[in-house]
Amino acid sequence: MPGKATRGRRATMAEIAAAAGVSVPTVSKVVNGRPDVAPATRHTIEELLRTHGYRPPRGRQNSNVGLIDLVFVDLGSPWAMEILAGVEEVAYRAGSAVVVSAVHGRHRTRPDERWLQNLAARRSDGVLLVLSELSPGQQARLEELDVPVVIVDPAGTPAPGIPAVGATNWAGGLAATEHLLGLGHRRVAVIGGPTDVLCSRARVDGYRAAMGAAGVSVPPGYVRFGDFLSPTGYRETMALLDLPEPPTAIFVCADQMALGAYEALYERGMRVPDDMSIVGFDDLDEARWAVPPLTTVRQPLTEMAGMATRMLFSLISGEELDTTRVELATPLVVRASTARHAS
Amino acid sequence: MPGKATRGRRATMAEIAAAAGVSVPTVSKVVNGRPDVAPATRHTIEELLRTHGYRPPRGRQNSNVGLIDLVFVDLGSPWAMEILAGVEEVAYRAGSAVVVSAVHGRHRTRPDERWLQNLAARRSDGVLLVLSELSPGQQARLEELDVPVVIVDPAGTPAPGIPAVGATNWAGGLAATEHLLGLGHRRVAVIGGPTDVLCSRARVDGYRAAMGAAGVSVPPGYVRFGDFLSPTGYRETMALLDLPEPPTAIFVCADQMALGAYEALYERGMRVPDDMSIVGFDDLDEARWAVPPLTTVRQPLTEMAGMATRMLFSLISGEELDTTRVELATPLVVRASTARHAS
Repeated sequence: MPGKATRGRRATMAEIAAAAGVSVPTVSKVVNGRPDVAPATRHTIEELLRTHGYRPPRGRQNSNVGLIDLVFVDLGSPWAMEILAGVEEVAYRAGSAVVVSAVHGRHRTRPDERWLQNLAARRSDGVLLVLSELSPGQQARLEELDVPVVIVDPAGTPAPGIPAVGATNWAGGLAATEHLLGLGHRRVAVIGGPTDVLCSRARVDGYRAAMGAAGVSVPPGYVRFGDFLSPTGYRETMALLDLPEPPTAIFVCADQMALGAYEALYERGMRVPDDMSIVGFDDLDEARWAVPPLTTVRQPLTEMAGMATRMLFSLISGEELDTTRVELATPLVVRASTARHAS
Repeated sequence: MPGKATRGRRATMAEIAAAAGVSVPTVSKVVNGRPDVAPATRHTIEELLRTHGYRPPRGRQNSNVGLIDLVFVDLGSPWAMEILAGVEEVAYRAGSAVVVSAVHGRHRTRPDERWLQNLAARRSDGVLLVLSELSPGQQARLEELDVPVVIVDPAGTPAPGIPAVGATNWAGGLAATEHLLGLGHRRVAVIGGPTDVLCSRARVDGYRAAMGAAGVSVPPGYVRFGDFLSPTGYRETMALLDLPEPPTAIFVCADQMALGAYEALYERGMRVPDDMSIVGFDDLDEARWAVPPLTTVRQPLTEMAGMATRMLFSLISGEELDTTRVELATPLVVRASTARHAS
């Protein structure tokens, strides 16, 4: 049932409510043992819950342990910290603790078997995956365990029924590139993240769309890829500077890579924005404090994490979600790293 | 018993070993039900364990839940992420999960009552506090709960018996200032962190010691304080530039504050290091990728966190620690933000 996410395969409260001719909150009251329901209505609902095999979510059985899991592919970045801050704030208010773990081992985007075993052992109430994905087998195991999952910033296209919160990456890439084109730049290059990561592909596609719409061709070698971290931003900027016709502006698809680009330009004695305009993506604290302050596309990481956490708690409570796909807006923040092209 | 940390108030394995005339590992084997102990020795030790009222740590009773708590005063910094990465790595190998929380509310350095209740409810095996401290009452409560605590980078002087892992902050401050003095600077200022945080006081004291040893006086207004974050580095650098005789070099006691200093200098049209030498403290990723790359004092945050975590697992296993105070070395990393004073 794509577009609707519920836990496991039980009858939903909505189905019970429809059958009883009452509202979902009324069913919820009965499930939760609240007193403010008329005895006859309560009786009807209780019968329906039994005949429909309604299985109350674990939280309602008072076996909710007050723990959620937050899984990162990689812990080592300020980017991850903003996500964590968003999750922790919402979880704290909900009275839940956050177990943080990283996907260990190189080149992995999926948590390993041991992680699943540990999760089962501590009976976590729910899981938030960041820039990560589940194999069909893992997804089936989590369904068996009756553990709901929400994905933050999905690496690939999430399986139907698994809710995900992302950002408008394509629109952000479009806006970043349009900004550079609007300043008169024509030789505009892009440095994307990993080619197999969804948000990176979307940003680069946004760049291509803006270039195409402006009737500006993309020269060979102008579309490059890194891994979101500074060293690859440095490496790919160096490669761009070594082209026969280097760009005059670069859209670098992550602030940390943009700092690597700054470093490469500094080493070559080039000034930002006089000799090269740079736009980043993320709007981490570092963007604000870079020299010069970085023009960038703001990705609302803390808000994305907070929204994903609220969705997870809804699922833990056995509620249905209105939507399983959310993308938050990515406004362009213009600072001092972009300037009009000196023609 | 300062200098020795054990859990609760039970007889220690060392006391049992001394009474039995055997080694601590032999007692440990008996406690853990391992087979390789001679029957007579085992009998003697078991008797002593009974008569001395030895209470095996929870881990030995198989009620270890495989969770430790990591508590930050503030989650919003790359600094915290390096600590988390160090803790998570060690905990993962030990088969334990890490619950991460922040001390909520402003101007607090102590976890609140609700946090203690949650900790008790989930029966966490141990607690790591970062830049935080416990009230005597909280410490007593954790002792009652039989939950061991280790402090990473203590904010104040930790209570006797509570182990702590820090860095050689004083020596780091000394080395940073000696580096600037060695480059011919005499008008050297310092921007410290909060005045009530131990590591900040130690760095500023190291600065004072280096200035004193070189026979260089500290002009009025040259010792300033921020909160470790960029905005206060910006603010205090502006204040230094507005002095009748501004410094030619600043030791900024945190990399994030140093980025704020860069920004202030950029706004005033001053170049680093030509017009001002800057030394930071921490050696975060941002220091390496700053423009120009920041000379800084490396604080081994990940290693500090890893060591504290290993100490915590030792306490959880009922072992005694050899020492309860560890300070890891803080080498100076010379990059491009410092230059010889143009006299």
